[in-house]
Amino acid sequence: MDDCIFCKIIKGEIPSKKVFEDKDIVAFNDINPKAPVHVLVVPKKHIESLANVDAANKDLLGKLLIAVSEIARKTNVDKSGYKVVANNGEGAGQLVLHLHFHILGGWMSKPHWQV
Amino acid sequence: MDDCIFCKIIKGEIPSKKVFEDKDIVAFNDINPKAPVHVLVVPKKHIESLANVDAANKDLLGKLLIAVSEIARKTNVDKSGYKVVANNGEGAGQLVLHLHFHILGGWMSKPHWQV
Repeated sequence: MDDCIFCKIIKGEIPSKKVFEDKDIVAFNDINPKAPVHVLVVPKKHIESLANVDAANKDLLGKLLIAVSEIARKTNVDKSGYKVVANNGEGAGQLVLHLHFHILGGWMSKPHWQV
Repeated sequence: MDDCIFCKIIKGEIPSKKVFEDKDIVAFNDINPKAPVHVLVVPKKHIESLANVDAANKDLLGKLLIAVSEIARKTNVDKSGYKVVANNGEGAGQLVLHLHFHILGGWMSKPHWQV
């Protein structure tokens, strides 16, 4: 998608601080972090959100969550705890319409919001 | 796990309002909803959190997110937008130590919190 900021990051046209990359997935630090550790985990394939997936995406989605788990270990939030959030649709606060999972952690105490 | 409330729900020992079930996954309404639509999507296998998964769980995790997408359609939040949240570890606010994804949606306007 020509005008997608995450597609541009994936292609290297916009810089990012990558913390993980393989052939299907890239992860980088959020430029406007909401927690001491705030990483975005993104499929390289442009999928708008979870509202746009079907069974054909099962393998990629499984890989994304395995990557989330690995990145949480790598960023040392696996023991202290972390939230994983995906906003799906602008009505839910999705700012970039390319599927991404937020990893949020590293708080000194508990996070200030809760579901 | 004998003392896990979600394992008891899965076994039918504790009632729940199920919105989805297949051989690997069950989904039911949160008893303390934080949004007009608040569903928990849970693997039947007792996995504590995403901090406890590895590549062997890829297929199940992919299925879980496909189920999330299907349940969002079924509960009519796919077009208006929904958040998907997994709290991993007590330090991140995980209350039941059995992996679960929250689906939150159906707000009249935007959700009151944002990441």
